[in-house]
Amino acid sequence: MEIISIKTTRREQLIDITAKVREVVKNNKWEDGILYIYCPHTTGGITINESADPSVAADIEDTLMKLIPRSRHYKHIEGNSDSHIKSSIIGCGSFCFVEKGDLVLGTWQGIFFAEFDGPRNRKVYLKFIRS
Amino acid sequence: MEIISIKTTRREQLIDITAKVREVVKNNKWEDGILYIYCPHTTGGITINESADPSVAADIEDTLMKLIPRSRHYKHIEGNSDSHIKSSIIGCGSFCFVEKGDLVLGTWQGIFFAEFDGPRNRKVYLKFIRS
Amino acid sequence: MEIISIKTTRREQLIDITAKVREVVKNNKWEDGILYIYCPHTTGGITINESADPSVAADIEDTLMKLIPRSRHYKHIEGNSDSHIKSSIIGCGSFCFVEKGDLVLGTWQGIFFAEFDGPRNRKVYLKFIRS
Repeated sequence: MEIISIKTTRREQLIDITAKVREVVKNNKWEDGILYIYCPHTTGGITINESADPSVAADIEDTLMKLIPRSRHYKHIEGNSDSHIKSSIIGCGSFCFVEKGDLVLGTWQGIFFAEFDGPRNRKVYLKFIRS
Repeated sequence: MEIISIKTTRREQLIDITAKVREVVKNNKWEDGILYIYCPHTTGGITINESADPSVAADIEDTLMKLIPRSRHYKHIEGNSDSHIKSSIIGCGSFCFVEKGDLVLGTWQGIFFAEFDGPRNRKVYLKFIRS
Repeated sequence: MEIISIKTTRREQLIDITAKVREVVKNNKWEDGILYIYCPHTTGGITINESADPSVAADIEDTLMKLIPRSRHYKHIEGNSDSHIKSSIIGCGSFCFVEKGDLVLGTWQGIFFAEFDGPRNRKVYLKFIRS
């Protein structure tokens, strides 16, 4: 297992981790198979979406905030119930195909760590299975 | 493939299945790889979230009920359209890393079966791929 | 990697691709393992849900349109921010178990390509890992 470290700077923040993930794939000479990207935190997640225009990430953060407001009458008393709910909606793990030693992503796709209770220091776990 | 059986007792209910999943991993002596957790039902799902405080699961159930009410004018006439929609939002499968013969979960993470049309008898399918 | 081609005909449309996916599994004589189904587009996704009654797919399309309207004040100016957000909520990839040369799906489950910015020509990538 490989571990990537991230520092988020806002409460809600999608951070493009594609370059960091790609570096791990290259350094390990992972050639052909499936790469698993996993968030071990319960108030974050992993999502793949457009990385060319940063306003897409901003719209995702913003819309999730509107759908799942921070201030509802929640039972969990730590003030971050909305963060947990968003984590389950986005999901804590994604996978990516690897071929010829590189990530197989669509033209506009990037891999994002989704922070929902930052700012924090976060980890992303990576594991690879050969075809 | 291994199968876990679950009995849900409410219409909406996140049930912590971490102990049952871990038992299957141990019994099969699965050492290092990826564990796939799959829900074969179209009104349930699998999610990984905080298991320490049960109010987190309650808040997820409750917020999804508010966002996707049971009583909208749906086309599907079985009275469980909301359950199907929640299933697609949460997702019917998750994966987990396995290392040294045990699940690699974050400090607060547990694996949940998400029931959206209970109470029912449910199955969860498990499969393992070695690294 | 195998590629399936799809032509969507509406802006929001869940298309059942189970038969096409199954054909790829059979043609490749994939016997036992995990099949990965991946959408390389940032305004589409993959979901597994009921395929028997097409009104379930219609209710999912319709409810997501109500939750994430097309016309909010988004920062992304291409008029498809809602499509990107739905893609992250549904997810761009799913997996399926394969046993005895066939997909392991629940009684009512089918695999869907979820179009959120159609009509378009779309691709779905498939990859298989043996158990």
